[in-house]
Amino acid sequence: MNRTGTNLPAVGEYNQTVVLDAIRRRPEGITRSELAALTALSGMTVTKVCRRLLDAGLVDEQGRRNSGPGKPAAVVKLNPSGGFAVGVHIDPAAVTYVLVDLSGTVRDHSRTGTPTAGDPSAVIDEMANAIEALIAGSAVDRSRILGIGIASPGPVNVEEGLLLNPPMMPTWHQVALRRALAEATGLPVLLEKDTTAAVVAELWFADPTSSRDFAFMYYGTGLGTGLSVAGEVVRGIGSNAGDAGHITVDPEGEVCACGRRGCVGHITVPRTLVQQAVHAGVLTAAEAGSPDSTVDVDAAFTRLAALAAAGDAGAGVILTGAAQALARAIVVIVNLLDIDEVIFGGPFWARVSPAILAALPGAVHADPALIPPHPIRFAQSAIPVDVAAVGAATLVLDNTFSPRPSALLLATE
Amino acid sequence: MNRTGTNLPAVGEYNQTVVLDAIRRRPEGITRSELAALTALSGMTVTKVCRRLLDAGLVDEQGRRNSGPGKPAAVVKLNPSGGFAVGVHIDPAAVTYVLVDLSGTVRDHSRTGTPTAGDPSAVIDEMANAIEALIAGSAVDRSRILGIGIASPGPVNVEEGLLLNPPMMPTWHQVALRRALAEATGLPVLLEKDTTAAVVAELWFADPTSSRDFAFMYYGTGLGTGLSVAGEVVRGIGSNAGDAGHITVDPEGEVCACGRRGCVGHITVPRTLVQQAVHAGVLTAAEAGSPDSTVDVDAAFTRLAALAAAGDAGAGVILTGAAQALARAIVVIVNLLDIDEVIFGGPFWARVSPAILAALPGAVHADPALIPPHPIRFAQSAIPVDVAAVGAATLVLDNTFSPRPSALLLATE
Repeated sequence: MNRTGTNLPAVGEYNQTVVLDAIRRRPEGITRSELAALTALSGMTVTKVCRRLLDAGLVDEQGRRNSGPGKPAAVVKLNPSGGFAVGVHIDPAAVTYVLVDLSGTVRDHSRTGTPTAGDPSAVIDEMANAIEALIAGSAVDRSRILGIGIASPGPVNVEEGLLLNPPMMPTWHQVALRRALAEATGLPVLLEKDTTAAVVAELWFADPTSSRDFAFMYYGTGLGTGLSVAGEVVRGIGSNAGDAGHITVDPEGEVCACGRRGCVGHITVPRTLVQQAVHAGVLTAAEAGSPDSTVDVDAAFTRLAALAAAGDAGAGVILTGAAQALARAIVVIVNLLDIDEVIFGGPFWARVSPAILAALPGAVHADPALIPPHPIRFAQSAIPVDVAAVGAATLVLDNTFSPRPSALLLATE
Repeated sequence: MNRTGTNLPAVGEYNQTVVLDAIRRRPEGITRSELAALTALSGMTVTKVCRRLLDAGLVDEQGRRNSGPGKPAAVVKLNPSGGFAVGVHIDPAAVTYVLVDLSGTVRDHSRTGTPTAGDPSAVIDEMANAIEALIAGSAVDRSRILGIGIASPGPVNVEEGLLLNPPMMPTWHQVALRRALAEATGLPVLLEKDTTAAVVAELWFADPTSSRDFAFMYYGTGLGTGLSVAGEVVRGIGSNAGDAGHITVDPEGEVCACGRRGCVGHITVPRTLVQQAVHAGVLTAAEAGSPDSTVDVDAAFTRLAALAAAGDAGAGVILTGAAQALARAIVVIVNLLDIDEVIFGGPFWARVSPAILAALPGAVHADPALIPPHPIRFAQSAIPVDVAAVGAATLVLDNTFSPRPSALLLATE
C-alpha cells in the first residue's frame, strides 16, 4: 500500500466535517468555545467553519448561553432540514422506504411487498415510483435530497452496484440496481449489504462513550452480522464482510443448505425455530402455516414469542436453545476481533429480545472457549424499527458528512 | 466517539512519515520528483522533508539518475543504519532476540530456552542481559536504538504491559514485563500479541500491490491468527484480537481444553498431529517422545513432515486432514471479514508447507459454505524465519515511522 500526503485544502474540508459532526451529536446545541475544546481546533478555525456551515444551511444559531465569564455565547445547533436522504431496504419479505433528515429522524416511510416480477426493469420502475411518491408526499425541498442508499442482503457487488444472488430471492441475479435507480431518479445512489448499513447507522447515532469495536447481529429472515473495528465499519475487499451464518455451533443440529450440521445461521432463524416448535408440539401445523411463506413464518414466530413470554416451557426451551447457539457464534467473533459489545436488531429481534437476552449474556461469559478477559455488553440497536432502511439512508449522510482521517489523504493523478 | 480536527504541525509530521515510507519501500532509490508524484505532495514540500530526513541521518543521497529532460536528479535512499530496533519473541519453546535495522534486515540474533524460573525478576534479568549482549555484540551505535518490541502469546494486557496467562507457560502470570524491561535497559518497550507483531511485520514489508485485508495464520506451538482490515492490524478493544483456535471444524475431532470436540487450534497443532501419527502407526512411541516436551514434539514433527514429503501415505493423510481443518476455519474468517489473502508463517510452518498447501486452497475454494465470490490467495510470510521476533522489532519501527492518518488528529487537553 502506498500512503499519500496531505495539504491545507484537505485539512480545511476535514475540519469542516469534524465540526459538523460535533454539532450534530449535541442536539441541545453547543457554543463555539465548547466546539474548540472538543475538536482541539483553534477558536478562529471554529468560527470560520461555523460561518461556512451557517451559509450552507446545515446549522442554525439558536439563542445564547452563559458559559463562564463574559457575555453569553451563541448556541449553534444542527438544522435537521439542511439535508435529507432516502433509504431503501430490500428484504425477502418486503421493501421498506424511508426519508430521513440530517438529524436522522424518519420524516416519512412506506413499504411494499418485494417485487416478484421476473423482469428487472419492471422492478426498477416500481422502486423508482415508490421513491418519487415518498419524496412528493413528504413536501421536502427536492434540491436538499443528498441521495439514495440501498441496503440489500449479500452478496453484493458494491463497485458495480449489483445484487448478486441474495439468499431467498431466486428471481434476483446480477441486477445492476444502483445505476438503474440513479438513472430513473436523477439522484446519486449508494448500495451496501444490509448489515454494513446497520453498522453505519449505529456509528452515526452512537453517543461518544459507545464502543469502537462491536458486532451487530441482524435478526431478519436470515441472520446477518455487521462489524465495527476501531470505529470504522468492516467492509472487506469486496464489501461483503459480515457473514457469520456458517459458524458451526451445534454438531447435532439440523443440516444447513451448505450440507453441514448446526450452522448458526440455519438453526436460529425464525423459519427454523417455527419448525422446531411444530416438532415439539408447541405450535400446531395449522398455526405454523407454510415454511415457504414469509407471511406465515412471521405470524407463527409472533405466536412462538408470545408463548415464551407467557411462560410456555416448550417455547422457552426453543428460544433458550437459539440464545445458546447465538452465544457460541458470538464467542467465535469476540475471540477473533476482541470486541466488547454486541448489538442486536432487525425486524424479528424485538419479539424475542426478552427471552434471548435472559439466556445469552450468561452463556457467552460462561463459555469455556471465551478468550478476552473483559466483560462484553449486550445492547439493542439505537434504531428500533427499520434499522436497515434507516441505515441505508445514513450511508448517504455518512458519505457526505462523516469525518474520516483517510479523507485527508491526497489523490495521486 | 469524538473526532478531533487537525492543523499544520500535525500535517508536517505526517507528511514526513509519508515521504520516509515511500523512500523505504524503494530500496533502489527514488528521486524527489518521483516522490512528489507518488505522495501527491508538492515538490517544495518533498524537498523540505528530504532535507529534514537527511539531517536526521535517516536517508542518504546516492548518485544521480536521468529521469526526463534537464540534468540528472539526485537519488535518495534509506540509510539502513539510521535506526535500529530490538525484537523479542517469547514462545513456549524458546525466546528469540533479533536486532533489526531500518531496512528490516536482521543484523544479529540469539536464542535461549524459555526461562523456567518461578521468580519473574530472575526471568527479567535474564532477558535484559540477553538484550544487552545482543546490542554489545552487534557494534551498532546504542543511541540509534529506537526501542524494544516484545511479542508474546496472548492474552496480554497491552495497556499495562502484562503477560496474563500465556497458554502452555504455567509459571507466567500477570508479569509486568514491559515496565521491568524498560527499567532494566533504559529503552522504550512495546508489548503486543505475537500474531499482532506478525501482521505489523507483513504490513511493514508489504509491496504496494499486496492486499489490505488478510489473515496471518501463525503456526507455532499453538495456532494463532492475526488480521489486517483495510491495511491496519486489528488489535481489538483489549489488544487480544486474533484467536481463531476454538472454531469448530470437526465435530468428531478430539476434545479440546475447552471441553468441546474439533476446535481447529487443538486438532491442527504439531503436538496433536504427532499424537495422531502415533495412533495411526506412522510414528513409533519412541519417535514421538513425550507430548509434554517441546523438544520431542519438534523432532517428531520434523520426522512426520519428512515422511509426508517422501510419500508416506499415512503421514500424508494426517497433514491433509490438518489442511482440511485449517480450510474450514479459514472459510469462517473469510466469510466474516471478506479477506482475499491468507498468509502462513511461524516456526512450524515451513516443514509442512508443501503438504498443507497441496490440499488447503482447493478445500477453501470448494467449501460449500464459502460466501465471497472472489478468489483467495495463499502466500508464505515475507519473513521466513523468526517472523514473530522480527515482527516485535517492526512494532518499534512502525510506531516511530509509519504514516497513520489517525496521527493527524489533534489531542484534546
